[in-house]
Formats: sequence, structure tokens, C-alpha cells
Amino acid sequence: MTKPPMRDALVAAAFQLFLERGYEQTTVDEIVALAGVGRRSFFRYFPSKEDVVFPDHERCLADMTAYLAESPEDTEPVERVCAAARMVLLMYAENPAFSVQRYRLTKKVPGLRASELSVVWRYERALAAFLRGRFAGRTDGMLRADVIAAAVVAAHNNALRSWLRSDGQGDATTAVDHALDYVKAAFGTPPPGPGGNEPRQETEDVVVLVSRRGAPMWRVVQEIESALTNQPEN
Amino acid sequence: MTKPPMRDALVAAAFQLFLERGYEQTTVDEIVALAGVGRRSFFRYFPSKEDVVFPDHERCLADMTAYLAESPEDTEPVERVCAAARMVLLMYAENPAFSVQRYRLTKKVPGLRASELSVVWRYERALAAFLRGRFAGRTDGMLRADVIAAAVVAAHNNALRSWLRSDGQGDATTAVDHALDYVKAAFGTPPPGPGGNEPRQETEDVVVLVSRRGAPMWRVVQEIESALTNQPEN
Repeated sequence: MTKPPMRDALVAAAFQLFLERGYEQTTVDEIVALAGVGRRSFFRYFPSKEDVVFPDHERCLADMTAYLAESPEDTEPVERVCAAARMVLLMYAENPAFSVQRYRLTKKVPGLRASELSVVWRYERALAAFLRGRFAGRTDGMLRADVIAAAVVAAHNNALRSWLRSDGQGDATTAVDHALDYVKAAFGTPPPGPGGNEPRQETEDVVVLVSRRGAPMWRVVQEIESALTNQPEN
Repeated sequence: MTKPPMRDALVAAAFQLFLERGYEQTTVDEIVALAGVGRRSFFRYFPSKEDVVFPDHERCLADMTAYLAESPEDTEPVERVCAAARMVLLMYAENPAFSVQRYRLTKKVPGLRASELSVVWRYERALAAFLRGRFAGRTDGMLRADVIAAAVVAAHNNALRSWLRSDGQGDATTAVDHALDYVKAAFGTPPPGPGGNEPRQETEDVVVLVSRRGAPMWRVVQEIESALTNQPEN
């Protein structure tokens, strides 16, 4: 991961000042003075003061879009958007201390909260656009695409925020994988088998489930899941 | 639905100018001049020019929050948040011409797009807060609450936007109910029985489903759903 050192210095200086004086009270002039660079250098990297708060989202969005565009034809689409969402988590996990600082800052500054919602919306639209392509021609394809993209983003953010609230302690990827498994179960991708990330091996075993007609669907699904989890090791 | 006429006059004047001159180019002074009221009257109703674009969301958010707070203990929670989301749709459907105008405006003005994302976020958090309360103590309760709230909002918005893109033609409620049924099916609420909105009657009939172990969950769910749909009329 090579980034221009001047860009890093600007981000570091900006956050130092944001935390000391508050975001609103900090000017770009003060940031460049602390970083020891000229004002024009700042604007070469960041269109505005706001953009220095989210320095890596544009790169991550571009990476995610490319990743989705390169999906092999036979990729399971829900699986693929979950893997794409995981890329965002990895960006946060790359630098836990910075991510936690920013989380605290965005919670305090309404304008930054709004910027964050915009960036989350763009991730969600990237996932939805991919799913819309894959579901084209299917009944309710656009609806399914939009709902699944939103569910994936919400699951990702639930895990991400728990991790940020715990000050970046613990393994962020375990939490996000667990959260994404919940979405996969709801929308039709089987969780990975005991062997890891390989899809579960197809066998001709049958599961017989007996359920009351009036049982709510979630309970039926829970019962099937627990039946399927108790499968013999291959 | 009684609203102060001055408030309505301000909204009408603002939209006339936004559409004629553009949102950014319109000042509050021009709005109040066209509406024939003083500047202070404007700010009595709207904190800023932006707020005149979304005049009914605060009321709708308050109504939704009250509706959720009043939920009977035995209400199925996913059903309840879907009904709450439907209230937003009804607000848009109350005045199709105005809703379509605003949709076109928010698509053109990035600042308004950001405001809209903030308001959507507040609706989503209201739904999630209710679900978190209902799912407290359940495994992954917070995760489930967040994901279901996001899915409900996405389904609602998918139907709402289709309706807005069709210039408010057709029945918005049919489209949103169909979209919400998709979410209910994914997250565990059975669709209403053939009798209408009454919950399906509990019977001691059993459904026996035989499925291959390797079958994807969505296919299993589909099979169960079709088995349950073919229940005898009571």
C-alpha cells in the first residue's frame, strides 16, 4: 500500500487539529501550516476540507466497482456483493486507530455525518447496480437487487460500527463475515461448508423437516438451518 | 389534513421559483415576495431554504415514531415496521404532483440529495430502534434489526421511486405492498392468508418437506412457501 507521504502528512495534520480544536474551527490554512506544505498541495489531493476526513473512499469505491465488473459469469451474485462489501471493512481495518478517530469525529459533526451517508449510498448503489445486471429479466429483479444491496450494507455497517465502538479491538473480519452470513441465509446463498470458503459439497442426502403449517417462516428457516448445520463432515 | 395556508403558500411559491430559476439561484427573499409574506414568516415554518423542499417529513417521522411506540405487545415486529414504512408512502401519495416535482428537483440538486439521504437515514433508524427493542436478548438481535430496517426502507424506496418515475401514475400502495411482501418473505413473516390481512389461522396440519442437503436455502424457502400457499381454505 504505497501512498504519497505528503497526502498522509496532510491527513495526519488535519486529524490532529480536528481533535484538538474541533472540525468546524479548523481551517485549511492551519492544516497546511502544521503539515509544512503549501495551500495548493492540499487542494491537489482533496477538493475540500471535508474530503480529508474520508481520504480512502474514492479508491475503495473504484476498487469495488472494478472487482464487481470483473465477476466471472458463474459467480453467485449475493456471495459476490458480500465479498465486495468486505473490501470496505478491510480498508477500515487497515488502520484501526485512524478509523476509530474518524468514527468519533463523524459522530460529533453533522456535516460529516451527511458526507458519510453519501458515501455509504454510493457503495450501496454500486452493489445494487451489479445485482440489477445479474437479476435482469428475473421477476422483481430490480427490487431484489435494491433490497439485497441495502441489507448487505446494513450488515456490514452493523459489524463495522460494533468494531469501531470497541475502539478497533478484536477481529473486524470475523464480525463482518458473521453479519454477512445472516444476509446470505436470508437471500439464498448457503453458508460456506466446514472446509472454509468452498461451497458446500452437493450430496444426495435428504433432510426431512416436519413443521406445523402455522409456523412462522423464520422459525422454519431456523429449523432447516440447524438441520443443515448438523451435516456429516466430508 | 389541515395545514396553515401560509405554510402551503410558501411551499408553492418556493417550488414555482425552484422550477423556473433553479434551486441554487432562488433566495428566501424571492420566495417570501412571491408568497406575499414577510421573511420572518418563512423562518417560523422552515429553519432554512432546504427545509421547504421536505415540508412533511418531520410530521411523518413523528407520526411513525408514535405509531411504533404504540405497537401492541403481540404485534409481529416485521409486519409492524412494514406498516410504518407504508405511512411514508402515503405521505407521498397524498399529493402526487408535488411529490413528482420534488423528485425531479432532488435528482438535480446534490445538496438536496444529501438532505434526502439524511431523512431516509432517520426513518431507517426509527424502524431499527423499534426492532432492536423487540429483538433484545435474541441472538444477533441488533444485527437483525439493522438489516431488516434497511431492507424495508430499500423495498419502500424501490416502489416509491418507480411510482415517481412514472409521474405518480398508477397505485403506489399496490407497488409498495408487493415490495414489502418480498422483505416479509425473506425475514420471516408469512404473507397474509387468502382472507385478506388477517394472520394465517394456526392449524395443527403438518407440512413435510423433503429436500436435498445441498439445496440452496432460497430454493428450500420457495418450496416451503409454495407448500404453505396450497393450504386448504378454512
